[in-house]
Amino acid sequence: MTLRDDAISLHRMLKGKIEIRSRVSLDNASEEKGTLGLIYTPGVAYVALEISNRKKLAYDYTSKWNNVAIVCDGTRVLGLGNIGPEGALPIMEGKSVLFKALGDINAIPLCINTQDKEEIIRFVKIIQPNFGAINIEDIESPKVLEIVERLSKEVSIPIFHDDQHGTAIITLAALLNALKLVKKELEKVRVVISGSGSAGYGIFKILQTAGCKDIIVTDTKGAIYDGRADINDRNPYKKEISINTNIRKLSGTLQDVISESDIFIGVSGKTDILNKQMIESMNQDSIIFALSNPDPEILPNYALEYGARIVATGRSDFPNQINNAVVFPSIFRALLDLRAKNLSEFMLVSVAYAIASIVEEVHLKDDYIIPKVDDPRILPIVTKTIKKVLGAHVRNKDNSAKNIKN
Amino acid sequence: MTLRDDAISLHRMLKGKIEIRSRVSLDNASEEKGTLGLIYTPGVAYVALEISNRKKLAYDYTSKWNNVAIVCDGTRVLGLGNIGPEGALPIMEGKSVLFKALGDINAIPLCINTQDKEEIIRFVKIIQPNFGAINIEDIESPKVLEIVERLSKEVSIPIFHDDQHGTAIITLAALLNALKLVKKELEKVRVVISGSGSAGYGIFKILQTAGCKDIIVTDTKGAIYDGRADINDRNPYKKEISINTNIRKLSGTLQDVISESDIFIGVSGKTDILNKQMIESMNQDSIIFALSNPDPEILPNYALEYGARIVATGRSDFPNQINNAVVFPSIFRALLDLRAKNLSEFMLVSVAYAIASIVEEVHLKDDYIIPKVDDPRILPIVTKTIKKVLGAHVRNKDNSAKNIKN
Repeated sequence: MTLRDDAISLHRMLKGKIEIRSRVSLDNASEEKGTLGLIYTPGVAYVALEISNRKKLAYDYTSKWNNVAIVCDGTRVLGLGNIGPEGALPIMEGKSVLFKALGDINAIPLCINTQDKEEIIRFVKIIQPNFGAINIEDIESPKVLEIVERLSKEVSIPIFHDDQHGTAIITLAALLNALKLVKKELEKVRVVISGSGSAGYGIFKILQTAGCKDIIVTDTKGAIYDGRADINDRNPYKKEISINTNIRKLSGTLQDVISESDIFIGVSGKTDILNKQMIESMNQDSIIFALSNPDPEILPNYALEYGARIVATGRSDFPNQINNAVVFPSIFRALLDLRAKNLSEFMLVSVAYAIASIVEEVHLKDDYIIPKVDDPRILPIVTKTIKKVLGAHVRNKDNSAKNIKN
Repeated sequence: MTLRDDAISLHRMLKGKIEIRSRVSLDNASEEKGTLGLIYTPGVAYVALEISNRKKLAYDYTSKWNNVAIVCDGTRVLGLGNIGPEGALPIMEGKSVLFKALGDINAIPLCINTQDKEEIIRFVKIIQPNFGAINIEDIESPKVLEIVERLSKEVSIPIFHDDQHGTAIITLAALLNALKLVKKELEKVRVVISGSGSAGYGIFKILQTAGCKDIIVTDTKGAIYDGRADINDRNPYKKEISINTNIRKLSGTLQDVISESDIFIGVSGKTDILNKQMIESMNQDSIIFALSNPDPEILPNYALEYGARIVATGRSDFPNQINNAVVFPSIFRALLDLRAKNLSEFMLVSVAYAIASIVEEVHLKDDYIIPKVDDPRILPIVTKTIKKVLGAHVRNKDNSAKNIKN
């Protein structure tokens, strides 16, 4: 049996990885005791009226407090590209399984039959009453970045974009620990990010907020720099990258700009784009995060052979898996429990520091820089951190993420 | 404790009557065996690609086959009116509990923050990939009738409107049995329906399809008749009623037209609109279905005292409860299992005959004309009926509903 055969057999057997469960039993006894008349007409009418008069009560009387919508238009699903909403369904059901297992959250897949930006924004606004938070998933970039930015301002529940925020947090967490091992400081290292989609943009933003000063982002045309001919207001996110990175204004290919860098972060969606010469051209104790899935920018054994010190991928079959599932269930659990309204870059950085801190320095090794998905310490520390950030934001806007002690 | 206190306490304790349950367990063992890599990346990618190439496979590999969306805009919730989407949430969760308990169906409440007709239609089209069928619920009339009509033509999964179709089926089923007791024929009786909203329109349609020839529908302005000054194309449903009912072209109040009728069906949303004189003016062995909730058009004891022979209401605390919950779980179960594309009036009539047949003639009594919600015979007979109708439609368009033998 191949992986393909195993996966298809399992899905054919399950016929759905999630289902609705009723939290009330409706046996004969309950009808006699009148439970039916409480959870449905006539009793439920009183509950409905109370909520109608004070909308916030929906958090107390319904599952809204624990409901997350996974909204996906099917345009950028895994490494598969634009496979449509039906194709995205099994992935979003898998995500819902992780939400439940790791965060005890009700995540409802909503794979939608529109790819129009304005319609997706409107869709999320329309479904808002049912949910405590929204997870945006696998929508093509840069469209999705604008959707997330707009929704974050225009709706009153938190909008989390796992490809952007989740990837950024877990990447920074891993990087913070890797830097401890190589004894370098984030403020002084040179970072090259390959890929300027949701993940590349998210990683650029979090690194910038965390204090990293020398970042170069490359796309299919090479290094992004302020003034590059093709960069304009039509893609404001790439423009933002061009203005806020590449202080030395380097142009050229990935091969050109990776030279003398300390860290490579690959979120390019491409495989085999790093070679021996490129890794050898990096600084001593180089760190390679080859995160494209399923096929990384370079396989770990080659990267190590060519002289990299610490290597991580997105895959579970290699050490140092940089896996969003470490982050998204716990961050949603915390956002829901604390009824947070919004995310901030500051919050993302703080959570990254918290997750990094789970691996105690005495246990840190080149092949163990990041906690496992099911580490029971993740959820409490993330909740504690977000709680402190929400408080700190109120008290002092200038608090630095590093000062949010766990 | 009052009913109100009981209902609110129970909801506060439950904090949601439904939740997501995972159908795969994710313990350590499953990670070692690679289950995680089958239900999520990398294995799930193969499943996604297969579906993307053949969309119908979503029915085999995901929960789509068993998912129903309960779509509500909060404009006409129970007897409470326009209480908004948040207020509607606990009712739709209650409905979801019934869907699960009685039909083993995953019904997802989607209470939406728009009241615009075109946007609601578009919303349902957009969410179609996730669902095997749609239940439209508690949207104001006549807007909802157009939404249902349009969607039935424009989407490829069944659209069921419980307030319209569910109420119509269960009302006809009860009426068929009541007529057996009073030994009258549907083709020959005079029926007055009070109320021309979703329920009134649905009941008019099903009675017409079932062969009832003398129907008068009244609204707040009295009897509807062809040519009434206020009736025009702006409400095509009321116009349809005006053209297809009231063969004697009676005008006047409910009091005027109820005289010499055999059956009164109240779906008016009003209470105490029938009095002694009106019931006394009806024909011998009159049938009163006072279906408005929570307060019927007349209380059963008065109706009986004034001479009605058979009385039914929508309430569980009186005999003969005409309850949609007898219908909607089983009809959705059948529609999903048979992958029906559409409903037809013929199908609704056939299901009504089937449900009526559950109460054997030997057991029929004036206060027992309709099976209970949890009667185990409902689901098999409804499935069998819809299967036959779907087959009969293919074989012979002229088959009469009564000939669909169960």
